[in-house]
Amino acid sequence: MTASALFVDLYEIAMLRAYFELGMAERRASFGLFVRRLPQERNFLLACGLADLLEELRALRFDDDDLRYLASLGSFPTEFLDWLARLRFTGDIRALPEGTPVFANEPILEVSAPIGEAQIVETLILNQIGLQTMLASKAARMVFAARGRAIVDFGARRAQGFDAAVKGARAFHIAGVAATSDLAAGRAHKIPVAGTMAHSFVEACPSEAAAFEAYARIFPRTTLLVDTYDTLESVRKVVALAREMGADFDVHAIRLDSGDLLALSRQARRILDEAGLTHIEIVASGGLDEARIDRLAAAHAPIDLFGVGTEMAASTDAPALDIAYKLVEYAGEGRMKLSPGKRSLPGRKQIFRQFHDGVAVRDVIAREDERYSGVPLLEPVMRDGEIVKAPSSLADIRDHARAAMAALPADVRGLAPCASPYPVTISLRLVEYEREVEASLARRTWPRARQPHLTRCS
Amino acid sequence: MTASALFVDLYEIAMLRAYFELGMAERRASFGLFVRRLPQERNFLLACGLADLLEELRALRFDDDDLRYLASLGSFPTEFLDWLARLRFTGDIRALPEGTPVFANEPILEVSAPIGEAQIVETLILNQIGLQTMLASKAARMVFAARGRAIVDFGARRAQGFDAAVKGARAFHIAGVAATSDLAAGRAHKIPVAGTMAHSFVEACPSEAAAFEAYARIFPRTTLLVDTYDTLESVRKVVALAREMGADFDVHAIRLDSGDLLALSRQARRILDEAGLTHIEIVASGGLDEARIDRLAAAHAPIDLFGVGTEMAASTDAPALDIAYKLVEYAGEGRMKLSPGKRSLPGRKQIFRQFHDGVAVRDVIAREDERYSGVPLLEPVMRDGEIVKAPSSLADIRDHARAAMAALPADVRGLAPCASPYPVTISLRLVEYEREVEASLARRTWPRARQPHLTRCS
Repeated sequence: MTASALFVDLYEIAMLRAYFELGMAERRASFGLFVRRLPQERNFLLACGLADLLEELRALRFDDDDLRYLASLGSFPTEFLDWLARLRFTGDIRALPEGTPVFANEPILEVSAPIGEAQIVETLILNQIGLQTMLASKAARMVFAARGRAIVDFGARRAQGFDAAVKGARAFHIAGVAATSDLAAGRAHKIPVAGTMAHSFVEACPSEAAAFEAYARIFPRTTLLVDTYDTLESVRKVVALAREMGADFDVHAIRLDSGDLLALSRQARRILDEAGLTHIEIVASGGLDEARIDRLAAAHAPIDLFGVGTEMAASTDAPALDIAYKLVEYAGEGRMKLSPGKRSLPGRKQIFRQFHDGVAVRDVIAREDERYSGVPLLEPVMRDGEIVKAPSSLADIRDHARAAMAALPADVRGLAPCASPYPVTISLRLVEYEREVEASLARRTWPRARQPHLTRCS
Repeated sequence: MTASALFVDLYEIAMLRAYFELGMAERRASFGLFVRRLPQERNFLLACGLADLLEELRALRFDDDDLRYLASLGSFPTEFLDWLARLRFTGDIRALPEGTPVFANEPILEVSAPIGEAQIVETLILNQIGLQTMLASKAARMVFAARGRAIVDFGARRAQGFDAAVKGARAFHIAGVAATSDLAAGRAHKIPVAGTMAHSFVEACPSEAAAFEAYARIFPRTTLLVDTYDTLESVRKVVALAREMGADFDVHAIRLDSGDLLALSRQARRILDEAGLTHIEIVASGGLDEARIDRLAAAHAPIDLFGVGTEMAASTDAPALDIAYKLVEYAGEGRMKLSPGKRSLPGRKQIFRQFHDGVAVRDVIAREDERYSGVPLLEPVMRDGEIVKAPSSLADIRDHARAAMAALPADVRGLAPCASPYPVTISLRLVEYEREVEASLARRTWPRARQPHLTRCS
């Protein structure tokens, strides 16, 4: 799905016109994308969404319809719109590889481009990287809680719109989710798809037993939904069906979708095992979040696969990130915002992740040209508007995510808030640079001649 | 944005194949869409998203790419796929007009169609009506809190993807939000757009004063952002600029985006008023939710307009609805689900809203063919797959929403959870019908011959 170039806030285009009129539009600027604070419920985020973003940026252009709409707003003269028609994204981007754990204040990506281009992609970048990063981070918790049992995404119906559902399935898969129920997502991102029957099928059939038999014959390796009327009675119908069908019976699993999943899974397992149906797996679904999955897995519930919908699809406990895209450099000089609670680190940066015995122990945010011990995380992904290398396969990104999460300290990977957050430090040179930029901004912002109250307010 | 027909869960297509093979696909069925429980933080929901949904349904078809993908899954034979290629949505829909307040268990819409068609639109309907209803319901709270001051949607960057941002802006506008910052939404839904400058513009300019002067000259009726460095100093720069520019100065507003908005708005108002700039309005933004807006409005903060982003864009306190689409009738017979906590009311229904002195006092959920006192809320919107009448204009829907919300009891309209929820009752005939259907399902579901444990379990 490629967005219209009009997926942008009006003020970005207004600023672009101002840059154009002031002769600033071609001056080079750098912006950094970062999360100011982790959500309380997260010990780390999983960077995600880059491949889709790069495709959007490469395709970015204002078409005739866009320009006509802009003209209709009455704020944009023809000369500016003609220039806008020719505008392409020609910038450079350095970014964390998708599937990399990231912490507060660390750049997820940095854009360096003529300021007009760097500015007008703000809405797009925040929305798209924010979406997939938020959803991948949530899914990582589900996968962790399941302790090796499979998680399947059932969330398309509860995701916040088409885009969230389809890109969410991708983000979930990167975080370790096995499959999705949504066919559009499966096709778009080559993700395995899964799903069998709803209650309505059972209800429409002459009887539950008839519904089961029909499915078992039409889709031999199917999963039968057993909670429409009475769960354990249903499981006994599956057993009866196995006896009736004999060698033709190849049902793969049953699905529990309501009630006390721990008790029901144990009772269902016993009924199946006593009938010799030890190979039939148990799928559980119905309002599952990572806490419930954790409790079920900790109690050794005989559940082989969890189907997860709402809680993962909308990241309900943390449905938005405090993500920001801020100017860090303009025409070679550092820039930062001083607003209370919203300060940003100036200049282009690099993150170094330091390991001890294979475990990540500390990140250092440094200036871009610094050499530091540890693995530098930001790498070039776009140069002059062109994607630097072919995107990694989803399987490779998934492998990277798995390895990178496995290298986090155990408490950071875990569901509970860390007693002490993962240590992220700032290099001495970056701290010094921040002071310099702040001092220079203070000089430039409150020139004596105009603002006699400087000494009182600064 | 029209979705692919593949925006559907795999199990819907699997059931469709089963209906096809069993000769059931053309049997008529009815499904009802409803919310099982209101989110704790909501006293009512505002039904929304119907117009977009009807367009999706009218356009629904499986194209060659879709069919090739389905064939690749290995579960769908050619004969079925050929039939699927010809499938169109030919059903009837009765629905609440958009902008109608709705409560738990009340049908938002009912679909009557051959069961295959009614089944495969489940994912689409849940996702799309769920999205806009959730977002309109959240926005209604913002508008209520603002007590007549304008709310503007700044949320595109924090919405969960493109679709949520663009359709969200529509839902917000229906709920009473004045304008959106997102141009794609403004164009798609003919919503007023708003927005002026970001901190990055101020930071890129040689000085804040220079940034203000540039904007005031390029966009005379602009809003100046005053919190990049020091808010009150910035407001004084606006005053200084007014003196310098004289008759050319026509700045419309200033925007506060951080800090103590109550104190700052009062101090800024005083500075502006003392300089004779009483006509300059004050816009406030920065992490606003309805509780903060309510406190500011209750304290008579001199704020003329609230810019709202994250909290509204992702409905952060209730980011998903417990919305369900359930079979209520098949081949003329009532159907319902008996799973614990997930029961549904059988049969096609009508809602009657009863008023006393212009205030809604009670809803009655009745069988479709009942006559009851009060206003029937569900109306035909689609017949044989065709939209029954031209969609209402957004302005008309907005007017309907305003009037319908104004007719709710004061505590239901309010932000605090109602001490006693709005009364929704079920007609005697519907209660009796529910018992009949339950009894008939019990007979059909546990036939004696097959299930000797009936007496123990039923």
